[in-house]
Amino acid sequence: MSDESRTQDAYARAGVDIAAGNDAVARYKEVLAGWRHPDQMDAIGGFGGVFRLPGSSDRALVASTDGVGTKILIAAELQRYGTVGADLVNHCVNDILVVNASPLFFLDYFAVGKLDPAVAAEVVAGCARACRENGCALLGGETAEMPGLYAPGHFDLAGTIVGVVDNDQLPQPETVEAGDAIIGLPAIGLHTNGYSLARTTIPRERWAELLAGHPSYYTAVRAIQRVARVKTMAHITGGGLLENVNRTLPPGVKAVFEQARWSVPAIEREIVERAGLSVFERYRTLNMGLGYTLVVPTTDAQKAIEAVEGAVVAGWIEARHEGEPAVVVHPERGA
Amino acid sequence: MSDESRTQDAYARAGVDIAAGNDAVARYKEVLAGWRHPDQMDAIGGFGGVFRLPGSSDRALVASTDGVGTKILIAAELQRYGTVGADLVNHCVNDILVVNASPLFFLDYFAVGKLDPAVAAEVVAGCARACRENGCALLGGETAEMPGLYAPGHFDLAGTIVGVVDNDQLPQPETVEAGDAIIGLPAIGLHTNGYSLARTTIPRERWAELLAGHPSYYTAVRAIQRVARVKTMAHITGGGLLENVNRTLPPGVKAVFEQARWSVPAIEREIVERAGLSVFERYRTLNMGLGYTLVVPTTDAQKAIEAVEGAVVAGWIEARHEGEPAVVVHPERGA
Repeated sequence: MSDESRTQDAYARAGVDIAAGNDAVARYKEVLAGWRHPDQMDAIGGFGGVFRLPGSSDRALVASTDGVGTKILIAAELQRYGTVGADLVNHCVNDILVVNASPLFFLDYFAVGKLDPAVAAEVVAGCARACRENGCALLGGETAEMPGLYAPGHFDLAGTIVGVVDNDQLPQPETVEAGDAIIGLPAIGLHTNGYSLARTTIPRERWAELLAGHPSYYTAVRAIQRVARVKTMAHITGGGLLENVNRTLPPGVKAVFEQARWSVPAIEREIVERAGLSVFERYRTLNMGLGYTLVVPTTDAQKAIEAVEGAVVAGWIEARHEGEPAVVVHPERGA
Repeated sequence: MSDESRTQDAYARAGVDIAAGNDAVARYKEVLAGWRHPDQMDAIGGFGGVFRLPGSSDRALVASTDGVGTKILIAAELQRYGTVGADLVNHCVNDILVVNASPLFFLDYFAVGKLDPAVAAEVVAGCARACRENGCALLGGETAEMPGLYAPGHFDLAGTIVGVVDNDQLPQPETVEAGDAIIGLPAIGLHTNGYSLARTTIPRERWAELLAGHPSYYTAVRAIQRVARVKTMAHITGGGLLENVNRTLPPGVKAVFEQARWSVPAIEREIVERAGLSVFERYRTLNMGLGYTLVVPTTDAQKAIEAVEGAVVAGWIEARHEGEPAVVVHPERGA
């Protein structure tokens, strides 16, 4: 059995169908092929959509919509509503940061079966706190009460962020070359991915550990950019290193990670063990300890890691030959 | 029993709690009172958030997030997925149109328990079609598969729109005065509100009627603006005439509608009858045949209704005395 089909088995056991997701994305592309707005610009890696700033020839708006995924089922079960809003805002901030955008404003969508105003306010307060920390307006939102769609105590939470970037500050993946270093920023825990798997492997009494926050990398990335030339970046979300780093690399190069260079959060090590994830599975399902990556020239690598506590040189860029994958991870010895 | 408490009873029977919604909104205001982004501008009536356009002193971005509400339960039950996406986009377009904004781009959030790529593509195709019709980019979106949150066959759909407006084209509710006319644009059906009530009153075998579309009023409003001075507008969504028109009126005036001046869609008449809605209830729950309203000087009223097929003079503005409601509807005789 190939690594790939095994992964699909592992995911399928948790109820998430990777093949269906890829199929949906392919169909969306067909749907969208019919027409394109003249002010829409090329997206880079699909982390955020890019649109010409009205009245400007040298700046662009960058927008992204995301959800918290089934992490909200953990929050709902534990009745801890204060952190998922911040998780969501930070997730969105990181997504448009990949395109180098600074956040302007955010809007939330909060949906429940039966509205409890205290719970709703706690969720929105989490969004507001993170918006403020990221210098971003909480410009609006929608609270929807939908009896019949959500079970008692359940809710969904999604959000949309809009930021702005100077066109000459857009990442330049085409400048990435063999020999460049990959800087990794540490993950705190699962962030907002892998929860369908986590819920089926981590015992209920320890779910509080699964609520560890999704951090914003905005300040860290800006600190690195002050001392290093950053060529391309990736936010490590669903799909892990394997399906996020590749999206912002040019053809002809591959990213090679060496796991011994950073540590994996204990909760993720445990999920790997309990679920029996193969090397391939773990790096496509979990962040495995890296929340965000930046490619810099080797000469800038030392300055970059000194600029941010916990930052590491996680790997390097190598030439990619035909048939080779775009991302390779060398696991630790014994893994 | 007062009209108000009866309404809350009728809604409560359908599973929607108006008091909880108002309580949540009050709590959000407290949460947001702590900090405000310096580029955030005053919203008008709460239909869309307004934010200074970066680099511009005379234009603003306007953004709004919304969902389709429990209309999606009808679509899911009937397995008809092609129209709710367009309903959502048009709803969002109308919301920012109240602030006179022209749409730039839209992002969707589609969440399911088990992803069926064909269904997802049909939903997104509906969004794409309406985006194109409104000259708006479908800039991005998120498809979330969340086993455990959504029942088999169920899904949720929300979206965010961003538009742009010249500051000197922002509505001027403060110029509204007694004697002005209120132009009403016809509703096709329920649009995207009142569905929790509709599902409990209209027999299952006739639910297809409930999927009638939510139209975009963009072209109609622009046509009226070419011939008439429009002072303020309202999109008639959840809360009906009573809770939407008031939001864009200044203190000291009231909107007086005369139901005999326009017709109510048959499906809404039927819901009113079957649910035994009081006059107060029906105008706070359903659009009752008006999807969008515009206040113009009386001298412009005739030109305005001639500019758009189906447009009517639905009422007028009168002085509002202390203790009077901001919106009054005179029902047809015999209603």
